[in-house]
Formats: sequence, C-alpha cells, structure tokens
Amino acid sequence: MTDQPDLLRADGRTPADLRDVTIERGWSEHAEGSALISFGRTKVLCTASFTNGVPRWLTGKGKGWVTAEYAMLPRSTNSRNDREAVKGKIGGRTHEISRLIGRSLRSVVDMKALGENTVVLDCDVLQADGGTRTAAITGAYVALADALEWGREHQFIGKKAVPLTDSVSAISVGIIDGTPMLDLAYVEDVRAETDMNVVATGAGAFVEVQGTAEGAPFDRAELDALLDLALAGTRELTEIQRAVLAAAQA
Amino acid sequence: MTDQPDLLRADGRTPADLRDVTIERGWSEHAEGSALISFGRTKVLCTASFTNGVPRWLTGKGKGWVTAEYAMLPRSTNSRNDREAVKGKIGGRTHEISRLIGRSLRSVVDMKALGENTVVLDCDVLQADGGTRTAAITGAYVALADALEWGREHQFIGKKAVPLTDSVSAISVGIIDGTPMLDLAYVEDVRAETDMNVVATGAGAFVEVQGTAEGAPFDRAELDALLDLALAGTRELTEIQRAVLAAAQA
Amino acid sequence: MTDQPDLLRADGRTPADLRDVTIERGWSEHAEGSALISFGRTKVLCTASFTNGVPRWLTGKGKGWVTAEYAMLPRSTNSRNDREAVKGKIGGRTHEISRLIGRSLRSVVDMKALGENTVVLDCDVLQADGGTRTAAITGAYVALADALEWGREHQFIGKKAVPLTDSVSAISVGIIDGTPMLDLAYVEDVRAETDMNVVATGAGAFVEVQGTAEGAPFDRAELDALLDLALAGTRELTEIQRAVLAAAQA
Amino acid sequence: MTDQPDLLRADGRTPADLRDVTIERGWSEHAEGSALISFGRTKVLCTASFTNGVPRWLTGKGKGWVTAEYAMLPRSTNSRNDREAVKGKIGGRTHEISRLIGRSLRSVVDMKALGENTVVLDCDVLQADGGTRTAAITGAYVALADALEWGREHQFIGKKAVPLTDSVSAISVGIIDGTPMLDLAYVEDVRAETDMNVVATGAGAFVEVQGTAEGAPFDRAELDALLDLALAGTRELTEIQRAVLAAAQA
Amino acid sequence: MTDQPDLLRADGRTPADLRDVTIERGWSEHAEGSALISFGRTKVLCTASFTNGVPRWLTGKGKGWVTAEYAMLPRSTNSRNDREAVKGKIGGRTHEISRLIGRSLRSVVDMKALGENTVVLDCDVLQADGGTRTAAITGAYVALADALEWGREHQFIGKKAVPLTDSVSAISVGIIDGTPMLDLAYVEDVRAETDMNVVATGAGAFVEVQGTAEGAPFDRAELDALLDLALAGTRELTEIQRAVLAAAQA
Amino acid sequence: MTDQPDLLRADGRTPADLRDVTIERGWSEHAEGSALISFGRTKVLCTASFTNGVPRWLTGKGKGWVTAEYAMLPRSTNSRNDREAVKGKIGGRTHEISRLIGRSLRSVVDMKALGENTVVLDCDVLQADGGTRTAAITGAYVALADALEWGREHQFIGKKAVPLTDSVSAISVGIIDGTPMLDLAYVEDVRAETDMNVVATGAGAFVEVQGTAEGAPFDRAELDALLDLALAGTRELTEIQRAVLAAAQA
Repeated sequence: MTDQPDLLRADGRTPADLRDVTIERGWSEHAEGSALISFGRTKVLCTASFTNGVPRWLTGKGKGWVTAEYAMLPRSTNSRNDREAVKGKIGGRTHEISRLIGRSLRSVVDMKALGENTVVLDCDVLQADGGTRTAAITGAYVALADALEWGREHQFIGKKAVPLTDSVSAISVGIIDGTPMLDLAYVEDVRAETDMNVVATGAGAFVEVQGTAEGAPFDRAELDALLDLALAGTRELTEIQRAVLAAAQA
Repeated sequence: MTDQPDLLRADGRTPADLRDVTIERGWSEHAEGSALISFGRTKVLCTASFTNGVPRWLTGKGKGWVTAEYAMLPRSTNSRNDREAVKGKIGGRTHEISRLIGRSLRSVVDMKALGENTVVLDCDVLQADGGTRTAAITGAYVALADALEWGREHQFIGKKAVPLTDSVSAISVGIIDGTPMLDLAYVEDVRAETDMNVVATGAGAFVEVQGTAEGAPFDRAELDALLDLALAGTRELTEIQRAVLAAAQA
Repeated sequence: MTDQPDLLRADGRTPADLRDVTIERGWSEHAEGSALISFGRTKVLCTASFTNGVPRWLTGKGKGWVTAEYAMLPRSTNSRNDREAVKGKIGGRTHEISRLIGRSLRSVVDMKALGENTVVLDCDVLQADGGTRTAAITGAYVALADALEWGREHQFIGKKAVPLTDSVSAISVGIIDGTPMLDLAYVEDVRAETDMNVVATGAGAFVEVQGTAEGAPFDRAELDALLDLALAGTRELTEIQRAVLAAAQA
Repeated sequence: MTDQPDLLRADGRTPADLRDVTIERGWSEHAEGSALISFGRTKVLCTASFTNGVPRWLTGKGKGWVTAEYAMLPRSTNSRNDREAVKGKIGGRTHEISRLIGRSLRSVVDMKALGENTVVLDCDVLQADGGTRTAAITGAYVALADALEWGREHQFIGKKAVPLTDSVSAISVGIIDGTPMLDLAYVEDVRAETDMNVVATGAGAFVEVQGTAEGAPFDRAELDALLDLALAGTRELTEIQRAVLAAAQA
Repeated sequence: MTDQPDLLRADGRTPADLRDVTIERGWSEHAEGSALISFGRTKVLCTASFTNGVPRWLTGKGKGWVTAEYAMLPRSTNSRNDREAVKGKIGGRTHEISRLIGRSLRSVVDMKALGENTVVLDCDVLQADGGTRTAAITGAYVALADALEWGREHQFIGKKAVPLTDSVSAISVGIIDGTPMLDLAYVEDVRAETDMNVVATGAGAFVEVQGTAEGAPFDRAELDALLDLALAGTRELTEIQRAVLAAAQA
Repeated sequence: MTDQPDLLRADGRTPADLRDVTIERGWSEHAEGSALISFGRTKVLCTASFTNGVPRWLTGKGKGWVTAEYAMLPRSTNSRNDREAVKGKIGGRTHEISRLIGRSLRSVVDMKALGENTVVLDCDVLQADGGTRTAAITGAYVALADALEWGREHQFIGKKAVPLTDSVSAISVGIIDGTPMLDLAYVEDVRAETDMNVVATGAGAFVEVQGTAEGAPFDRAELDALLDLALAGTRELTEIQRAVLAAAQA
C-alpha cells in the first residue's frame, strides 16, 4: 500500500475528498418523507412511505417495521439495462442492496417507540456514477426522519420524540493503485483492487462493514486505512444530514 | 353537455387551459436523448437510448425500430403501489401505456431513413397527478429527437436530416359536470364522465384517439367538443416542443 | 379519402357490409351464460360465470363487479403462437383487450342493482380472422344477459329486472386504399392505414372509440366517415343480439 | 369385485358402453390437421401444427418430433378455474396430461420417416365431463394423421406414405361399487375406487397403462377386468377413427 | 419376449435382483421423520415434516393431509441440470413425480385417524442412477411412519396407534432385449423397450401401475411378466422397511 | 466488550473453538469434484461441475469462469421452508450467499490459466445449524480443487499446475453477551449483537469481511477482536483442507 494523500483524482479530488453532496429534502409531494440526494453525478430519489399497521408476521407485538427497496432506472447507467419488471424477476445485486439499506436504517430506529407502524423506503437511482447504495442509505435517512416526524404530527406515534436512536450514513472506500480513496466514482470503482462500503451512525459506530477483494486479497493494514477514511467520510455526511434536517422545510 | 368556458377549476385554470408545462432537455447525462417533463405536478423522466442494430425479427430488412417502456415509481402516487418487478409481472395498464407510447412515436419516424438502428424510450413517472401517458409521449418526442440527432452526429444514420416526418404530442381531455376540459389533473380525472387521450402530429393530424365512457356513454356532439379542445392543446404542446428543441443544449 | 361504396372486397362484401354474424347461445352446458359467436371465420367462445360475492376491495359496498379475460388458442391463428401459460406471462395485447372487454360490458350494467355478485366473462378465440375483440364484446353481451337472468332466477339479484341499462356491441372499421370499410377481415386489417374499434350501446351512444393511425395520421373527415360506418354496424349487431336473446333457449 | 354387466348407469349406459363419440374432422381452418372430438358432453378441440424443422436439441439427426400441449378453458368445468396464464404457471395435472398425450402420439410415428419436421398437438378442452385426456389422445390422432398427410402433399416428407406405424386411441375405465365400467363421466370418476387410463394401438397393444387406487388398493383380478374392458373400448374408438379418416374431407 | 432368468446384468445382478437397498433412518436431526435411502448408487433424502393444522380447503372436516415434493440436486445426475428455482418454474417431470409420491403415501394413511394434521414429505435426490421415484416412495414411507409416531407421542393424534393402514413401497421394472428385469439402473432404463413403475402395499395390492412403451407397444403377456417381477420386488422392499422400523432408533 | 476466553458455550466449546469439522471428499460419484462438509450439525453438499466453454459474454477472451449456487433443502432447518422452485423465485438471502460464494472462490483462481472453461459450484445445505455459508465456501474449495485437477488430467487446462493461486476458507464470528466467539451455532447466531463472516486465503489475507450490527452498532475494538478470532479460525480450516486434499482419494 502506497498512501499518497496529495494525489489528485480524475475529477480533481484528493484521495480523502467526498464528491459534492446535495440533498433536496421533500422533493416528492406525495411521500411522507423524501430526498433527492446527489453524490456528484450519482442521483437517487429516496421516498419514505409511512403507513399504520405492520406486516402479518409482526402483528400484535407492539413493534414497528422499516424496510427498503432499491432499483435503478433502465438508463440510469451508461448503457441501458433491461427492466427487472420486464424480466419478471429481481436480480441478486438489487436484492442484496435492498436488504443492506433496510438493515442500515433499522439500526437507528427504536421499533417499540415506532409502535405498529411501517415505513417503506424506496430508493430509485435516477443517474448512476458509483456509490448508489451509499447515497441511497444517506438520503433514505433524511426521508425516514421526515416520515417519522409526519407520523408524530399525525399522532400515529407518541408525541415526545421521533423514534430515532441516532442518524446513519454510508460511504464507499477503495484501494486504487495502492492508494486508499474515499467515495469512488464509477471509473474508480471498476479499477479498485479492494472495495468497501461502510455504514456508520452519527456517533461514529459501525452498522455494516462490507469489504471485498476485487483483485488481490487485502491485509490488515489496508483494512485499517480504509476504515479510517470511511469514518471521516461518514462524519462529513452526518454534518450534511444535520444541516438539511435543521433547515425549515419548503 | 353544458359548455362553460368561463368556469374556473380547482387550480384556477379555465376549461381550455393546459397546466404549466416545462421540459428540462438533457436531464440525464448518460442517455443519447432525455427530457424531464412536467405537466403541473406530473413529472416524467424520458430517456432515449440509441443503439446500433435491431431486434432479430427485423434484421436484414434495412429498417429501424422504436419502442417504449412506461413505469411508475412506487411512491409517485398518493399511496404507495407495489413494484411490478417485485410482483414479478407487468400489469395491464403499464403494458397498454407502453404500447401506446411506442406506436405514437413510431408514427413520426421514417424507419427506412433510420436504418438498422433502435431507439428505446423509457418513460418513468417520478410524480403523478393525472396525464402521465400524455406527458410521457410529449417528453419522449424531445428525447427521441435528440437521440436521432446523436445518431446522425455519430454517423449511424445519414447526414442529411434526422429521420422524423413530423413532431408528436398528446393531451387528455374529459367531460366533468357536463363541461369539456383540457389536461385533467388527477382529482378531475376521477370525476370525469368521459375521458379521452388524443395523440396528434405537429401538423394537427390524429395519431391516436382513445375515448372511454367512464360514467354514461357519450354522444357525437360531446366527442366533437373533446376533439376540438384536444387539438388546441396539442398545438400548444407542439410550440413548447419546438422552442425547447430550438434552444442550444447545455 | 376516396369513398367507393360500390367497391367489392375480396370476400364479395361492399365496404359497408358486415360479415355473416351468427351467435350460438348457450353453447356451453356448464356456464350460467354462454355464446359461440362468429364474425365470418372469426369464432369466439364467450362464457359468463356468475358467482355470489365480490373481490375483497369491493366487499361491503353493496355493488357488483363484472370483469373479462380474453385469450387466443395457440392455433386459432394462421401460424401457431406459444401459449401464454407456457411463457408464464400474459402479453400486452391480451391485457389490453381483456381490459377493453371488461370496461365495455361494465358500461351497461347497473352495479347497485347487481348487488354483491360477480360475473366473469371469458372470451376464448377458437379461430381468428380479424375483429376478435369486437366479436368478443358482442358475444359476451349475450352471455352476460343470460348469466344475469340466471342470477335473477336463482334469487341472487332482485326479481324485477336484470340489472342492464342497455345492450352493447362493437365493430372494427378502417381505411383501406382510401376507402372506409366495415368489419375488417385479417387480410384487410393488415393493409389498413387507419384502424378503429368502436363500442356502442344499443341506443347508439359511444362507450369506447379507439382509433390508431397504422400508416399516415388521419384527419377529421376520415374520423367522421369511420364513426358513421361503425355506428351503422353496431346498429345491425344490436338487432342480431336482440333476435338471439328473444328466442327461447334450447 | 362384483361384476354386473346388466346394471344401468345414470346416463342409461351399461358398464361396457362408450358414451356417444363424434369427431368433427377439419374443424379449424388454419391448422394442418384438426378435430373437434366429443365423448358425450366432453368436447376437446385438437389441432395439429406441422412445421418444417425440429427443436435445437434434435437438429441434424434426421429425425422428426411430435409434442403436445393440453389445457382447459376456464369455464369448461362446472365451476370456473383460474387461467394458468394468469397464474403465471402451469399446474402439475396439466403438465402430466400434456406429457402423456405427447408420448402416446409419438408411439405410432416413425420419426425417421417424418424427417426434420415437427408436429405440435394442441388439445384444448372446451367442455369437460370426465375423460378429457382420453378424448384428447383419440382426437389428436385424427388431427395428426391429417397434418402428416398435409406434410406429404407439400413434400416435406417422402411421397410413399405418411409416417404412421399404427393408430392410437385411449379410454378410461374404473371400478364403481365393485363393478368395472368403461368411459367414466365426471360424476362416475369422482366415485371410482380405482381409476385407469389405457392407451392402445389400433392393433390392440398397450402404449400406456396408468392405474391408480383412489380408494382401496386393487388386486390382480380387478386389474385384469379393467384391462379387458379398456381394450374393447379402444377397439371401438379405432373403428370410429378409421371411418372418420376414410371419409372425404370437407 | 425372451425370458432369461440366468442372464447377468452389467452390475452382476440377475434379472430378478434388486440392487443393494439401504435405509439410514433418522438421518436428518430436524425433521419429525427422515430416511436416507439408497437403491445402489441412487440416493434420496426423504424428510417428513409433521405440522398441526391442514390446508385451508380441508379445514374443519376433521381429516388430515399428506403431500410430497420431489426434486433433484443440480449435480445429482451425470451432467448438471439447471435448478428449477433459478428457472423460476417446476418442470413437468418433477410435478408428475411429486404427485405420484403424494398419492402413493396417502393410500396407506387413515386421514380420519390422522385428524387435522399435515405431513409434508420432501424427497430430494442427492445422487441419481435410475429408480429415483421408487426409492423416494420407499424411503418416504419410513420417514412418514416416524413422523406419525412423533405426532402420536406429542399427542397430536390419538394414542392407540399410528394412522397407517399398511406399508407402501415401489419398484421399477422393464423389458430389455426381450427380458423383463427388476429395479433398472440408469443405463438399463435408457435401453428399456417398456418401462413400468409399480407401487404396492405391504399386503401386495396395487396402489399405482404406470407402464409406458418406450419403444414398441407391449402385449398382455409382457405386462403380466412385469407385474409378477414387480410384486416380488415390493415384497422384498416391504421386508427391508419392516426391519428398519423394528430397530431401535439412534 | 467483556472478553471471557475461559467461558464454556452450550455445546462445551470455549469462545475460540471451532465445532468439529469433517470433509468427505468425493461424496458424489457424478461430479468432477465434490465434498460433504460438516461444521458440527451443519452439513453442506458441495459439487463442482467442470465444463468446457464459458458463458456467451466471456467467449473469445481466453479466460475461464467460476460461479456458485447455494440452496437449502426445505427441511434442512428446524421448521420447514417452502421451496424456492415452488415459489417461482429465489429469495434475496439465497442470491446474496450464492454471489458471496462465487466471489470468494474466484478470488483464488487464475482465470487466464483456467482457459475457456467453467466451473459451477453447487452448495446444497442438507442440514442447517448456523454457518452454512462459511461451510459452503470451505467445502466448495475442496470440490473446486478436485474439479480443476480433473480438468488438468483430461487436458482441458495446461499440464503444469491447477490454476489456483491459494486456498480459501471462511468462518463466522460474533459478539454474544459481550464476548467474541468463533463459528456460531444457530442458537448463538440469533443471540449475537454483532455478526461477521470472514473469508480469507490460506496465506491469511482477507477476501471478504462482512460485519453487521444485529443489535447495537459496534466499535473499532470489537471489530478488531472479531477479525483476530476469525483469522485464527480460517488458519485451522486451511489445515483441514490441506490434509483432506493431501490424502489419496477413494
């Protein structure tokens, strides 16, 4: 591993830079919470649908449920992909990311305080340039926070506070030509020897760590460098989420 | 039929008014052509994917192909709909609208001049408030025009001109409380006794006329009033399309 | 448009002639209502299944439901088509026609008077030669009338009258070599520049008007000529339906 | 087993009687061979589609292929069944019967003499009253014979003779209240303690013997009585097939 | 038919020999009953899952239900087969065998004495060398017997006796080069002119007889010879089942 | 985190103990490589199918392909799960684990040296008691090694050496009541606050690290303790794999 913090990337960033992150809160007029999030050219529309009641297997336990579905528009990518609805089945990658988003968001929800209510998070990638799952998690948190606030205002949940124990955000990191880098764009992602997605709470604890050797296996020192970089990234994302949620909504 | 041209609608329009129509051309950075079109609160992202080659059943005939797929995001509507990919099949309404968009756009393409190239139009409804299929056709034309221009610049089609014989747009009309009205919003659509979608060329000829009695059957005079209103609407949409395509693209 | 009322077609008809229409009422011994209808060589078996109760989404509203399913036998056509059951999904055309038949029949049923009962209309094309959807609607009406009469006799619905507000029939029209023609056979259908299906009530009002430019777009005069021809056709079909339903059933 | 040859059944038959069997040869105008067969109230439309070429796995071996698909119209039965196309999958019973029909017909075809041609037999039950699979096999043989004759006339197969080694027919037998009976109607079928379908050649040899104990297991004497009855039945069906095929076709 | 009882087969057996049959009772630690059965190199894992309650269509009738599912591991065979789960549908052969196993086991269960309980038999072929369905039935009986005993011990069914009226086993027979042979291995199965599967009770009565002419049709004498051979085979299997069930379980 | 290395678990192990691991190499007689692996009561049958040729998207690039499919038998678990083949679709968990196994095995294969050959690894869980995915990876490596050796012997790949760059194994770790533990059994897995699967090479480098907070988020110290424990576990598994592969095969 040759760590080169001053190296400039194709888009002018240093290895430890995030891309420009913007969050348009309340983008959708129908959903109880929503956010159009951009990590550079990656754009994901996240909506949170709050409904009273829970799936049958959870009924009567006094607890709520949060789940997520992720999808990509067919031409969100550089060449067109067939629609999963047309193919009649959901691919493994889609399933995997949907499950990751759901687990990540559930990690910061107090299900008892949520009561028998369900929030479904839909994360639809409108344009993809790497990091769609991490943008989805980060944006879905903002949509979730607003949907829970909506549930509180409409008295589906107790008045005291929204049932969140912390915030959650996610970022990708990877090693390219021996250098650990933060928030990989697509052209970087395909070149990375090691690729890792880290989901962390606002307090800086891990929710998910998913590291994969794309080329050669990686050692403990590389793993440590990637984790450091990732936690610095999620700290920045946490600040952006706080600022967006602190603003008065349109 | 009691025709009341001065009546004001819930959103302040007169019966013959379109909603605000905006077209963000080139919204998607990956597609060969794209447009984010709004008819009031209805927002549809239209992308046109140009590829060299045609489906197997058309190979070797020297002709091109244009087809379309329509879909709604699960929370584009007031309450969440299950994803068709999750259900594992495409519903009848989705199929029907996809086929309508495809036929409408093919009606203005010279398939011989297109040569053995294919354009796939994806129309994804990001937010729905009535008229999604007509917005999709109107926006898809802009995306198609840019994709064909791209094909010409990249020498997949002859240099002289893009293979379009005319432009095409579409609008809904309906009779509400006896009054014919243009461009129905969702709350109007559910109350309409008769509902009609009209697809017309820039020159004002019909491509599709689809009228349905939702309540009582309709007579010839009602049909004529709706067609007049619709053709006035498509004339306006044609102007908007021309203006957008005449502007230099970002 | 060059209107040539004296022109003879391949099968000897003038432009305004229907093909021979026959309706074998009560063809199926199991169904509450049934009809084997022929428009020339097109043969469609229509059955109406009356059941007490309604789909869950309609329960408790005191209203009935009428729906339809259309399908073609694999060798009803000139070359064999794969079964949709084998392909594991229903195609767009099948969906679209099923929906059209359902809407058309619902337009003449008084759902309040039907009460919480359901009629499912199955229209299976045994042999196809153009006009299968219009034959299906016309035959399904006869099957529906008998099924509703069955429901009245078995006291599922009130004794006074069957809950029908009118009759309904359908016919295709098209422009071929500039001449508007009624009830297109398959060889005519593929040559038509404009193709229209009209569903009308016994009283002569429109239930559906679906016109499509297969070749060049069509103008208002062509549209008017086609509508005139179609209404003359549905008047004839209405007479045939009345005669069949007036006869004592076998 | 109490054999009672003089006993009369609900429909007036003796235990050894077939129901009325009629075969309308050439019922479908499109198919290369077709037959509408009735075993009493059971009606099955059998079409044979002849196409040049064989499935990929058989290409280049100089042999032909014969296969079959069986289906029931939704209201062929006493109460309506959901369409398999709508359910998106074919049920076990349908699969099983389709496979049985295919095997049965293949048993009398000389695949070498057929050459690289395929015949698909579609057997669609229009009305069901027991014995649909045996009627399907018996009718499919007539459709197959005509399709092979068509192939010979159109010079897809050698001129000498159609590639059939024998004829084939099928009948059901069962034991009801201790009495073996031939050709069970639906009300008999549900009461049978043992149920057997026998497929035999014109020469009287077995192609398939499928016996099932529905109630108590059966012994060798019962099996023998059922086989005797069945072979008498297939002899009669063979005569009917010969007479139909000997007649000049309309 | 040339009967040659002294002839030796490829694996050293005489025509009337079974392969080595072993049954590992209780192979699975989770299931209420289980058996890993081998017929030579054919190995099938049979589990019986006992659950309180019955499918909805049987509720409230005071009767139990027994059903079966058969499947092959993708590489149980000589070359790999695609998984049915991946293909998204179950093939006809799988359906047919699952239904046969279910019917066979139900034939020896007293459903009234079982009460409203369900046993699902899963028969998964781990290695295939012919006769997988007959091994499955024979092994499933052992698993079923243990699951019913479990149900009795856990007081879901009456204390007196497990609700079995007899035992059941199955074997294949076939004619190869004119000689009837018992328990065909795969290389024999593909060469057999006639192939028969016989399911019989411990008392020696028939539950299912399924004979198929793979090559030439078969006559009555051949059928009789095959049935004799099969009943001798099921007598041996019955002894093996009894011995296994008589042993104390691990 | 309260690290208690002397604590005894329900099955008598210390926190750092593996369960008994056994590998029956060559369990399947048909596959080119196979292994029945047990981690305690967890049993997974792994087969490796070697075929000449690669998927279409890889053809002509001179490289090979390795892929995997994971599945559970319906009664491998404590209560029966419906078959995915019956449900008609593969669940998210199955997809995710299949992809993980494929990636893990590909990480130690030299695709250039493999040439245009494909190995499919089928990992079918016969009995589940936690750690099925890690047992699958560890067993699949043994099956893969034998299949590659088979390919070398049959001259599909170069003679010098099998195209493996290292071995690969996997183990689960988790934190239970504050104590990090190795190789979780099912009852431990459901209680774990943090759950991690680690895939490592024989040389001790990471191929995959997947850590998930099931309860509270985890900190860096916990992560480090889990990684240490996991690497000790994969070192032991590597030894077991070596010993099994060094033995002469039956």
